[in-house]
Amino acid sequence: MISVSIIGFGNVGQHLFKALSALEGIHITQVFDRSNAFTVKDGVVFVSTLEALSPADINILAVKDDAISEVSEKLPYQGSLVVHTSGSAPLDAIDSKNRSGVFYMLQSFSKDAKVDFSKIPICIEAERENDLKLLEKLGEMLSHSVQEIHSENRKKLHLAATWVNNFSNHLFHLAADYLESHQLSFDLLKPLILETALKIQELHPSKAQTGPAIRRDEKTVERHLRLLNDRQLQEIYKLFTESIQNKNQ
Amino acid sequence: MISVSIIGFGNVGQHLFKALSALEGIHITQVFDRSNAFTVKDGVVFVSTLEALSPADINILAVKDDAISEVSEKLPYQGSLVVHTSGSAPLDAIDSKNRSGVFYMLQSFSKDAKVDFSKIPICIEAERENDLKLLEKLGEMLSHSVQEIHSENRKKLHLAATWVNNFSNHLFHLAADYLESHQLSFDLLKPLILETALKIQELHPSKAQTGPAIRRDEKTVERHLRLLNDRQLQEIYKLFTESIQNKNQ
Repeated sequence: MISVSIIGFGNVGQHLFKALSALEGIHITQVFDRSNAFTVKDGVVFVSTLEALSPADINILAVKDDAISEVSEKLPYQGSLVVHTSGSAPLDAIDSKNRSGVFYMLQSFSKDAKVDFSKIPICIEAERENDLKLLEKLGEMLSHSVQEIHSENRKKLHLAATWVNNFSNHLFHLAADYLESHQLSFDLLKPLILETALKIQELHPSKAQTGPAIRRDEKTVERHLRLLNDRQLQEIYKLFTESIQNKNQ
Repeated sequence: MISVSIIGFGNVGQHLFKALSALEGIHITQVFDRSNAFTVKDGVVFVSTLEALSPADINILAVKDDAISEVSEKLPYQGSLVVHTSGSAPLDAIDSKNRSGVFYMLQSFSKDAKVDFSKIPICIEAERENDLKLLEKLGEMLSHSVQEIHSENRKKLHLAATWVNNFSNHLFHLAADYLESHQLSFDLLKPLILETALKIQELHPSKAQTGPAIRRDEKTVERHLRLLNDRQLQEIYKLFTESIQNKNQ
């Protein structure tokens, strides 16, 4: 049995709480939720001040990146394993009075969306070998994909995650606005967007590319640029066309 | 019973052939496949010259955009319904000796991937009201989503489809190369990419945006730009950050 405390009860904290509560080998001892008063629910003690926390085997900081240092400093215990869940904060963001670690779940957590943890890559890191093993054990109870990734590489991974998630969502947003401004429904694109994401699960994206840019179909590219009729959309279209052609010379 | 001939046997033609063959109310009379000799398979006549074609109720041109005019001109019959499957070619690309129509399936067809037609939006258009009704009937046998879309709007839809499919795939490609150049596996991003596409099935992309750009977290943006270390990647990152912030002022 591994005891766990969850410090912070935003999106990540809440999803983690749900997932860990369902596991037999895990006992959640305490949850720190500053926005709620003291309660006990299903054997878990919810506290609203950091001073009320006691150490568990693994103490998970599910707080914003820039709060990691401050919150870890204020913990009323020392010598315990304290891990953060950030993609970009370094291992040593955690105050050195405790043993530090990282438990980064590479997914975008939305408030209401259900999360299937079994497929989420979990990237772990720890100062000490034994702590790493404990984090690996916890990770493998949640997911099929657990790997040790050090801070420098985790930052790059986080950047790539931002890139594929934020930027493709922005492409969808721009396309939705474009269609809606012409009284066309964005719903028409949804199956294609899903298919695009499904395709690269099997096929490397370098092999999945299609369309006028890679075909060097300049006539269609020019027609598209005229249809866009907006400086920033045209700029994005040109940059992608150029970049796709550069990649496939 | 609707009789159908399929003229062209590339990706679209082959997928359409499979899907239509499975339908009870459809009889495929002929398939034109220029790369194969004359054969008869499961009651379908495969021909390799256009002269060997006879008209069916619906004759589907599944050929490249710039071959539509030429192939439709060479058809050895007239007064029949001939439809193309292109997103960007106009209705009148089809030679006027036949009745013209469009049967555009908004999806990216890959050679080996299985296609579930029931969710693919089918955009139809025809010169004549009766032909439109017939195309609607055919469309509804394949898909839950059939709508009349005229050539001008279809072009815009095709542009938006190119945009979300080609450009997000290119983002995935760039991210894969970036990770692989640092000995990190692109597999780590696959669940997130799928989640990003699933999320906008329910939530409008304008509501789904997260990340440093929309949070105006300049520190992370600067750190990411330093980590990218490549002129074109930096340019794309900057343009997206600027565009996300413009959209969310």
